[in-house]
Amino acid sequence: ELAAKGGTNAKACLSEVAKAIGHPLTSSEVAQALDKKLSALPSNQRSQFLVPRNAGLPETDPSLAPPDEECTYLVGNSLGLQPSRTKELVCEELDKWASLGVNGHFTGTRPWVPIDENVIEQSAAIVGAEKSEVAVMNSLTVNLHLLFVSFYRPHGKRNKIMYEASAFGSDYFAFESQARLHGLDPKEVLLPVKARAGEELLRTEDIVAAIQAAGDCLAAVCFGTVQYYTGQFFDVSSITKAAHDVGATAMWDCAHAVGNVDLKLHDWEVDGACWCNYKYLNSGPGAIGGFFVHKKHHDKGLPLLAGWWGQKQSTRFNTEHNWDPEVDAGAWRLSNPPVLQTVSLLASLEVFSRTTMAELRGKSMLLTAYLEMLLEDLFGSDLSVITPSAPAARGCQLSLKFAQERACLATFSALEKRGIVVDHRKPNVIRVAPAPLYNTFRDVQRFCFAFREALNEANGEPAHKRPKV
Amino acid sequence: ELAAKGGTNAKACLSEVAKAIGHPLTSSEVAQALDKKLSALPSNQRSQFLVPRNAGLPETDPSLAPPDEECTYLVGNSLGLQPSRTKELVCEELDKWASLGVNGHFTGTRPWVPIDENVIEQSAAIVGAEKSEVAVMNSLTVNLHLLFVSFYRPHGKRNKIMYEASAFGSDYFAFESQARLHGLDPKEVLLPVKARAGEELLRTEDIVAAIQAAGDCLAAVCFGTVQYYTGQFFDVSSITKAAHDVGATAMWDCAHAVGNVDLKLHDWEVDGACWCNYKYLNSGPGAIGGFFVHKKHHDKGLPLLAGWWGQKQSTRFNTEHNWDPEVDAGAWRLSNPPVLQTVSLLASLEVFSRTTMAELRGKSMLLTAYLEMLLEDLFGSDLSVITPSAPAARGCQLSLKFAQERACLATFSALEKRGIVVDHRKPNVIRVAPAPLYNTFRDVQRFCFAFREALNEANGEPAHKRPKV
Ligand SMILES: Cc1ncc(COP(=O)(O)O)c(C=O)c1O
Ligand SMILES: Cc1ncc(COP(=O)(O)O)c(C=O)c1O
Repeated sequence: ELAAKGGTNAKACLSEVAKAIGHPLTSSEVAQALDKKLSALPSNQRSQFLVPRNAGLPETDPSLAPPDEECTYLVGNSLGLQPSRTKELVCEELDKWASLGVNGHFTGTRPWVPIDENVIEQSAAIVGAEKSEVAVMNSLTVNLHLLFVSFYRPHGKRNKIMYEASAFGSDYFAFESQARLHGLDPKEVLLPVKARAGEELLRTEDIVAAIQAAGDCLAAVCFGTVQYYTGQFFDVSSITKAAHDVGATAMWDCAHAVGNVDLKLHDWEVDGACWCNYKYLNSGPGAIGGFFVHKKHHDKGLPLLAGWWGQKQSTRFNTEHNWDPEVDAGAWRLSNPPVLQTVSLLASLEVFSRTTMAELRGKSMLLTAYLEMLLEDLFGSDLSVITPSAPAARGCQLSLKFAQERACLATFSALEKRGIVVDHRKPNVIRVAPAPLYNTFRDVQRFCFAFREALNEANGEPAHKRPKV
Repeated sequence: ELAAKGGTNAKACLSEVAKAIGHPLTSSEVAQALDKKLSALPSNQRSQFLVPRNAGLPETDPSLAPPDEECTYLVGNSLGLQPSRTKELVCEELDKWASLGVNGHFTGTRPWVPIDENVIEQSAAIVGAEKSEVAVMNSLTVNLHLLFVSFYRPHGKRNKIMYEASAFGSDYFAFESQARLHGLDPKEVLLPVKARAGEELLRTEDIVAAIQAAGDCLAAVCFGTVQYYTGQFFDVSSITKAAHDVGATAMWDCAHAVGNVDLKLHDWEVDGACWCNYKYLNSGPGAIGGFFVHKKHHDKGLPLLAGWWGQKQSTRFNTEHNWDPEVDAGAWRLSNPPVLQTVSLLASLEVFSRTTMAELRGKSMLLTAYLEMLLEDLFGSDLSVITPSAPAARGCQLSLKFAQERACLATFSALEKRGIVVDHRKPNVIRVAPAPLYNTFRDVQRFCFAFREALNEANGEPAHKRPKV
């Protein structure tokens, strides 16, 4: 089986397919053949999504991107596509509200009081957690703060927070303000791990060494699981273990990892994790957030910011002031759940439930290897891939780095005109992310063709009518 | 003008109308006449809402509540009705997502990045704030914690939190965990204000005296603005002033006040406030929360839990780690806004923008006085109104307290059968809340008629077919 054979041997495997077909790997014939091979697999769920057409996008040039065709959407790392069922599920809840009013809390399909129960099991499966370890609530940065309240407990000299020097801004601001919350000076307690001079990526050995060096000064480690800018997939298990070995906790921001790579948060002994559901989880702009607390921390009276919804359902509506928390990750919930957001996530989880993360990861490794191979001859001093080349050390995203921001932006615009949707991150990077759940080899092949044209256009060569690719 | 003349003279005013018509106040003729008088006023927006029909409710008895008729919905204190425009606005955003994908962040009607700008101005008008003082984000209990991080800064002996002894559970749990966050023992620092023996309501003089007695031990005061159980509308201005006079801050949970009473958070010098938008604000189950920080605290570097979204829009997407906060309440935002929840609020705010809180409050005082008058002869030792009788000291809600929980629950069930939707709160209370924006005198009159029947039924008298009322 192609996807299973793929994985770390993806490149060899793809070359073999091309050879068997007798067309170059860059050809649409090979792309179509690959899609055909995968079309019957449960990891192919493209038909469950609404793909924007070129006509709807703001910057497309109709002569370069046929208005009626689907665009080439490779930006699931930023906002995933809408599942076809989303509107139906959202409208069902609006109709319930219209016909039941407040009674919807306890009656109807999916009563609202326990509505999050509909999204826990599948969320847990996706992050490699037990059901009891997951809550669905709030938004990512809010959840990161909630994790810190429980897992960053500075005392005495054990007060440092270790993080990636290039952490996502919001995470960094959370670290800073959490330090201040404890009356500590961020300059004193924040310990960034930097890449070696001349390198873009962090080496696991350097991270582990930094953790060991910090030793009993270290209170907590917090990293992005898949780095938003480079696409590096950190070695969560080793870093978490290193943190535990010095007596620190390990928290993980899984924004770019969830639904992208095969997470094992439980087995990796991660203390706490949070994620957003609008990227590879396809739950829409500002979707509800995800939250993980390892079982070993349940029901231990860990400090947390409490709210009535963290109580057991049986006592939640009592009016007495006796905090009676849920015995699992549900204890971290604060407020009654946002219904529209919850079913918006449900629509996407229904699609995920047709496959597994292991299957998706197998297909994803092929797609990204294919992307890399199709661009390989372009890489040099003006353009490079900063994402790790080892498939196990990255997710689906490749980060294409330009020597010049000008060239990067010009290429990005030229791609937009061609109906290619990717994104740009400062400095000088275009992120390309074939989402395992809905992207195809054809998407990747189209991107690569358009990318070459876009580079030419950015270099001053005139755009010409898009040939059939 | 009836509504303007109403207010504190509501009762006299209603009696006059009944006299002029020549029918008893309890008659449907008077209810209809009153509705007619108010029908042309901007405070009457019932037509903008979807009212559930009796048939859709789980417990109605078709012989007592005609299936095709609208139910009598008097529970806006728990979950407001759905504005007719909600589905349209929600579907517009889903359609944008389907056709624009990630481009919806910056393009289309209501781009998502600044989507909260669509709901700030009207939210501010409703709570009596300047635009710069309001943020729309998260949920109530989360926002209460965020306020505490900024406004509860215990140091030395100034570490006490004063609150109502019967505070809503979630608020109490927040107080408790905030004390713990600072390493303090809740038993030491939580100072409840209790009603006098034999009284249900807190007296302003007692609250102020308690604040003065706590003096420089008091760090913060936090009360529900309209008490969820009794319906008491606290004297926000006096209590806030008393807190400031001893050097403490004042935070207000406006869950039951927003859209109900005419708030003046800015003028009252409230430091911080939060609210939910699912009650009188009609934004649906688990709606997005509201947040207020007084202008005097803006741009002063107050401690807060930071996130990238608290930055200025111009620097928000920078990748550097230089926290560049918004100069107003927007600095407290953490995450990118939940789009469906935001437009769900917008649909309701569009209705509010057709009137003013002053107009609504005028009408509301009449409706609640009418409710009180129609029940007056029932009150005694078995049943009483615990809500203040002074219109200025309550919102729209009356809390009907039974001597026995059994009678309370039996009455509640008998009301349900009759298509009357109110709610029950332990111990022994039925809350009845004619929402100013959509309830009518006819609703109130129907409730009162059904309530008498329900009391009889609860007392063992058989239900009979509902006569035309
Ligand atoms: C007075 C009061 N405070 C707080 C809350 C908690 O709200 P949430 O679940 O939105 O955090 C409620 C909910 O009804 C409430 O009535
Ligand atoms: C890695 C990472 N962390 C945190 C965030 C912040 O997310 P939110 O706005 O949902 O809090 C993002 C958003 O894209 C992200 O990519």
